[in-house]
Amino acid sequence: MLAATRPLQALGVVRPTLLLDAARARRNIERMAAKAARAGVRFRPHFKTHQSAGIGAWFRDAGVRCITVSSVDMAEYFAGHGWRDITIAFPVNPLQMDRIDALAREVDLHLVADAAAVVDALDRGLGQPVHLWIKVDTGARRAGIAWTETARILELARRIGASRRAGFAGLLTHAGHSYDARGRAAILAVHAESLARLVQIRGELKAAGVEPGAISIGDTPCCSVADSFPGADEIRPGNFVFYDWMQASLGTCTPADVALAVACPVVGVYPERRQIILYGGAVHLSKDWMHDGTGRRIHGRLATWADGTWGEPVPGAAVVSVSQEHGVVEFDAEVDPEIRIGDLVTVLPVHSCLASDLYEEYWTLQGERIPRTQSNRSGGV
Amino acid sequence: MLAATRPLQALGVVRPTLLLDAARARRNIERMAAKAARAGVRFRPHFKTHQSAGIGAWFRDAGVRCITVSSVDMAEYFAGHGWRDITIAFPVNPLQMDRIDALAREVDLHLVADAAAVVDALDRGLGQPVHLWIKVDTGARRAGIAWTETARILELARRIGASRRAGFAGLLTHAGHSYDARGRAAILAVHAESLARLVQIRGELKAAGVEPGAISIGDTPCCSVADSFPGADEIRPGNFVFYDWMQASLGTCTPADVALAVACPVVGVYPERRQIILYGGAVHLSKDWMHDGTGRRIHGRLATWADGTWGEPVPGAAVVSVSQEHGVVEFDAEVDPEIRIGDLVTVLPVHSCLASDLYEEYWTLQGERIPRTQSNRSGGV
Repeated sequence: MLAATRPLQALGVVRPTLLLDAARARRNIERMAAKAARAGVRFRPHFKTHQSAGIGAWFRDAGVRCITVSSVDMAEYFAGHGWRDITIAFPVNPLQMDRIDALAREVDLHLVADAAAVVDALDRGLGQPVHLWIKVDTGARRAGIAWTETARILELARRIGASRRAGFAGLLTHAGHSYDARGRAAILAVHAESLARLVQIRGELKAAGVEPGAISIGDTPCCSVADSFPGADEIRPGNFVFYDWMQASLGTCTPADVALAVACPVVGVYPERRQIILYGGAVHLSKDWMHDGTGRRIHGRLATWADGTWGEPVPGAAVVSVSQEHGVVEFDAEVDPEIRIGDLVTVLPVHSCLASDLYEEYWTLQGERIPRTQSNRSGGV
Repeated sequence: MLAATRPLQALGVVRPTLLLDAARARRNIERMAAKAARAGVRFRPHFKTHQSAGIGAWFRDAGVRCITVSSVDMAEYFAGHGWRDITIAFPVNPLQMDRIDALAREVDLHLVADAAAVVDALDRGLGQPVHLWIKVDTGARRAGIAWTETARILELARRIGASRRAGFAGLLTHAGHSYDARGRAAILAVHAESLARLVQIRGELKAAGVEPGAISIGDTPCCSVADSFPGADEIRPGNFVFYDWMQASLGTCTPADVALAVACPVVGVYPERRQIILYGGAVHLSKDWMHDGTGRRIHGRLATWADGTWGEPVPGAAVVSVSQEHGVVEFDAEVDPEIRIGDLVTVLPVHSCLASDLYEEYWTLQGERIPRTQSNRSGGV
């Protein structure tokens, strides 16, 4: 069944709304926590995906005590909700040094750096000690010192060793290139290679007489697919709490693991061009996209509805374009003849981190409203 | 000069911040208002771009009394700020009928429809009269009845004529395919063709004995490039208030017209790969993209800074990828050797409607903070 008009209207949905299947999210959390425990690594989940104190509490229920965030604002928000061991896995922003120092007074604060200038800035700006990780680029080519640049990594480790404020915590990476891998075997290969590169660097640091610290890794594809993390001390996946259509396509989860969907009203039906139009556009789903099997760019998949939640995607039905408020859904064959203007449907977003960022709150299928921090949206302090 | 660290720090910028050059925005408003007056068409600007009562007041200063929005929430927001003639240029969402009715009690409300089912829903659900436009698809292939389907347009006009609540207002289009046109001449061709199609339909309605009403058009490329709107009664451009790098690339504005930029801290410098990393990612710039001249996908352009505001884009420097919080800027030649971690730079976003949607407020270069409605972000009522 495509439309879920009655059950969603019963929840009060009349416009694009962020739906959360809380049972699935809790199951995703418990599964990853259990995997980390079995593998003997610290589980330091990334909270940038959900950005919600309420959902954070579910992680606490699963025994989590250490978390990852990607901004000073998020760190402040979660510190304000009782989290006491926080890694800001984003390059230090020296313009927020006062707030970083205030945070370090309150919590066990971990930062990441890939340049000596950052250590200088911390030494100048902080009154409190922090843990400092070296960000290593194991292939994602975003932040970090390239893994091949061992001399620079060693030099930075020595500089941190001489810091007044920063204690060298170890090597941290985000193997984001796992998102470009196709299939579980390819993801496992990225995982093994990325981790092996860090282990090799750790060996070289040790050989050079530097206490090498820990190894921290964490991207959802690798952490979902791998069963072991040989050499790693902690994992920091984030997206897995909700997953999304991108992850299901990568094979890192099944559609039944996707805990997040966007409910959208149908506002136009165009059987002659095999399309419907949703009230649900770029400001509700994000403009993120992926290629589907046919080479089309898609922004989400229409989901079926069964047993009180969303199910498998409707075969051949995808959101093929989004403008500010409109989403155009194209069907491979005919448009579901039962679909009408005024119906409500559910869309599995391509990227749950960006879709959920567009909302103030999650609506669970039980009718609970769970707020998200809005700290992204303001300017400076 | 690339970095604008001191002037932006003086404004209080420490993280990604939405900057508004108020003088440019006011000039853009006055210019379009003057063009509409010269051309003898009603100016009904689309407020979805700015979504701000404060910026709306600048339009009022320019003599604007009628506005366009794209959701019931936005209509409620602007009605609450004294606007009394509002078109919701988005297909009617029957699930919000009670709120539409409440709005129609308060303001002169214009709606758009492309299906008889919508007129039925209005007749069932409304106690108040509304103006109803037929949405015609003149080539954009989003909402609307295709312009070739004259019989269906005529049938819908007659159905509206028989409505208890909806008065037939005329034909409305959004020639969004102007964004695919390359250059001013191509945009003018889309404009002329789209308008001619509406004029033709109006003639056919008249010939069939239906009072054809007005013609409403409105997309920023056409309204910026055209000097006249022969046959049109009103224009509804929105993006022109800020413009953006997409518009500058289309040739519909100059870089000196772009009134919006995102200030971003530099958090990584990688001369060896000709890149810097900004604190400024998909949640600060949006994930919207365009091809630059070299076929690269870009999410924004680094701007120079001069005379207290942003200027021309830095040649060959573009935001080539964004993840949640990171933006990667690539330089064609070498990285500006003066750029440092901790500097502040300005980015011209590809799409100002989506970038500004990510913020709670605009910061003017004079230090004023102008709030935006956040009505997108909640779920139902």
